Amino acid sequence: MTDNDTPSPSRRSLLGWGGAGLALGAAAAGGAVAMARPDDESPPNASTAVPFHGPHQAGIATPVQDRLHFAAFDVTTDDREEFVQLLKDWTQAARRMTAGHPVGDGAYGGLPEAPPDDTGEALGLKPSRLTLTIGFGPSLFEKFDLADRRPDALVDLPKFAGDALDKNRSGGDLCVQACADDPQVAVHAIRNLARIGFGKVVIRWSQLGFGKTSSTTPEAQTPRNLMGFKDGTRNIAGTETDRLRKFVWASEKDGPRWMAGGSYLVARRIRMHIETWDRTSLQEQEDIFGRDKGEGAPVGKAKERDEPFLKAMKPDAHVRLAHPDANHGATILRRGYSFTDGTDGLGRLDAGLFFLAYQRDVREGFIPIQRNLATDALNEYIQHVGSALFAIPPGVRDKDDWWGRTLFSEEA
Amino acid sequence: MTDNDTPSPSRRSLLGWGGAGLALGAAAAGGAVAMARPDDESPPNASTAVPFHGPHQAGIATPVQDRLHFAAFDVTTDDREEFVQLLKDWTQAARRMTAGHPVGDGAYGGLPEAPPDDTGEALGLKPSRLTLTIGFGPSLFEKFDLADRRPDALVDLPKFAGDALDKNRSGGDLCVQACADDPQVAVHAIRNLARIGFGKVVIRWSQLGFGKTSSTTPEAQTPRNLMGFKDGTRNIAGTETDRLRKFVWASEKDGPRWMAGGSYLVARRIRMHIETWDRTSLQEQEDIFGRDKGEGAPVGKAKERDEPFLKAMKPDAHVRLAHPDANHGATILRRGYSFTDGTDGLGRLDAGLFFLAYQRDVREGFIPIQRNLATDALNEYIQHVGSALFAIPPGVRDKDDWWGRTLFSEEA
Ligand code: HEM
Ligand code: HEM
Repeated sequence: MTDNDTPSPSRRSLLGWGGAGLALGAAAAGGAVAMARPDDESPPNASTAVPFHGPHQAGIATPVQDRLHFAAFDVTTDDREEFVQLLKDWTQAARRMTAGHPVGDGAYGGLPEAPPDDTGEALGLKPSRLTLTIGFGPSLFEKFDLADRRPDALVDLPKFAGDALDKNRSGGDLCVQACADDPQVAVHAIRNLARIGFGKVVIRWSQLGFGKTSSTTPEAQTPRNLMGFKDGTRNIAGTETDRLRKFVWASEKDGPRWMAGGSYLVARRIRMHIETWDRTSLQEQEDIFGRDKGEGAPVGKAKERDEPFLKAMKPDAHVRLAHPDANHGATILRRGYSFTDGTDGLGRLDAGLFFLAYQRDVREGFIPIQRNLATDALNEYIQHVGSALFAIPPGVRDKDDWWGRTLFSEEA
Repeated sequence: MTDNDTPSPSRRSLLGWGGAGLALGAAAAGGAVAMARPDDESPPNASTAVPFHGPHQAGIATPVQDRLHFAAFDVTTDDREEFVQLLKDWTQAARRMTAGHPVGDGAYGGLPEAPPDDTGEALGLKPSRLTLTIGFGPSLFEKFDLADRRPDALVDLPKFAGDALDKNRSGGDLCVQACADDPQVAVHAIRNLARIGFGKVVIRWSQLGFGKTSSTTPEAQTPRNLMGFKDGTRNIAGTETDRLRKFVWASEKDGPRWMAGGSYLVARRIRMHIETWDRTSLQEQEDIFGRDKGEGAPVGKAKERDEPFLKAMKPDAHVRLAHPDANHGATILRRGYSFTDGTDGLGRLDAGLFFLAYQRDVREGFIPIQRNLATDALNEYIQHVGSALFAIPPGVRDKDDWWGRTLFSEEA
């Protein structure tokens, strides 16, 4: 048995195949262990593993990784025991994958007559700062006698002006957000969780994000969204412990107790009318955001990081309406990604922003801000087509802990 | 006017915004030029630009980049002049984007009352080895009086056993393959070409590939496909001039003359039945390919690069059936990518291999091999759902040349 908690410098160690190699004999002799060749094409820091254990789940305050695979699942089992076991199995798999190991260890599944424990496509890839973050949707609390454990903050989101939500891209009993600097690592993780969950959960919808649109590290270059603007300039930094405590982490006194150290995630699939946007003048584009396109500076200011002067912006400018000063201080941590999912029936790119926002309470975060955005000039160019809300339980503390333990095992 | 041919070390130079900054006055003063901050998160070599000019188009023998955005377009204009002008405009945009510059230069489009020349989301990103490769589909030759210029090798692909082709993911008058180490750079390129083509061409379908499944640099680590196997082990290397000449580049004597230095591309969207595959035993998986999963060695051999001994494999093993020895020497250059496009209506990942193969003549490349794969054991786990074929014209020679010039301007 290997130590699952030690981040590996490389998935190349092929732990999962070690046993297989022995069992296979001739075919694998001398060949079951891949060479640890230096790979010139992998990004720097790719060898880094983000610690899985902690008071909060990783993937929220963690510096935003480049790529995303997000999956919403529905629970298909009625058996609470079975579901709890799945959460334990998922936790163990997540622990291994985020450390750069394949699911399972050499002692299992390496037998030729059994399916491998790990699907294998991430072997040879670095941990790539993979984080896996689990969430529980409102509908989960209708199952397994959980009704009285549902947090008050896990409201049903109201209908917002302009919503055109597709049921097939909305909701879900569970979610897993996989972020990594290598998309293959993120895709591998979701797929292996889905596989472990076979017969107990089924993927309801999933979303690939090819480029981050937010940063939680102010010193890094701010990424640009598909409208070409720097996005995530004013965000909560992963190092701002005070603001995280104030705006992101649910506390014991917020209730319920099982959520202490957790957070709430709003996911919105926001389609952009790219073709219309691309025919809009630079001036109008800049007016819409209240920032200039090249530098990202607020209207009337010179630098991206200068404090926005809201009154210099048009009354319907996005930043003016989204800013905490316009929302009684409401503040969220944004962690969205750009997507393109081919083309729609009209030859237009199905592209936009997969918006992800973490907050301590949606009633004091996303909801008031999104309500205030009803008059946003940006609305002419976007449409919210998917929506989901999840309670993000606290972190997994150590190797005996598991995702959701506080919900399923602790006193209310 | 800047020199478009000089690869820029960084898109950060923001050439496209230079003029805008001046025109915008106060809002942009001192702010129009983004800082060239070192970006710790960008991959190594990302600063490299692949030369756009040459006897062959880049993106074929070029070492395979990590990510793909592939688009098939239909032509909507009847006006040959207009279409030729589009090809010239695209060439110029491609020249700039592959060098890491935005589309257009500071002298145009930076005016606040005009839409920007470039959509902007790749500003600040490195060239990321972007290549753009154009192709002409059979249906293009039914337009613009081109019928007699259609190459004999540009056949209509026959129907193959097991094909379940979706018209909405097949065909196209034109294609552009964008490969880059950063997906945002590839997506940006396709989108800007689509935008320049507005009113003249429309995207018919497009495909994002999140991970390469082939390598054309044998010294690099072989990537793994979504079945977890190393893919692209036996491929034509970008440095094998002789084999490229023999199997990939169309020659003058193949005819037509305008195709000399070009190639033919087969694109197949191959869906994998991932969930079924994942429940298959390791032994069966290895039998199906005729290689072991950990190392990628052929049956009975120890190392990935060992020569396959076909007779040691099951008669229906993929490698045994696809190998040149089983196909009268037929050899293709594979350059495919893994895809995941969310989930289908049944909660299964819509994932697989976007297969791309280049060859001198499909009648001596893809067609015989694919016919021979009719009895492939792999067929139980895959389905071809999209198909397209394109004639890839020769490279753009210099700054006065343009994509398709030999087709549209030279004698037959
Ligand atoms: C496609 C949709 C959207 C786009 C393209 C977009 C883009 C932007 C951009 C470019 C900025 C300025 C730079 C920055 O500070 O990050 C910004 C700021 C912001 N956006 Fe959005 N946004 C979108 C949707 C939303 C939604 C749905 C919300 C929340 C309901 C939101 C909340 C915010 C907030 C809170 C700020 C920071 C305001 C400030 O403190 O100055 N955005 N957004
Ligand atoms: C999802 C579908 C496919 C998968 C997963 C797949 C996978 C593989 C794998 C793992 C190998 C062995 C390693 C290597 O040499 O690259 C291979 C070899 C090969 N495949 Fe495929 N393949 C697929 C479809 C195709 C198709 C459609 C063709 C052509 C019609 C093809 C042609 C070849 C060739 C020519 C080889 C090299 C054989 C040799 O020279 O040993 N493959 N494939």
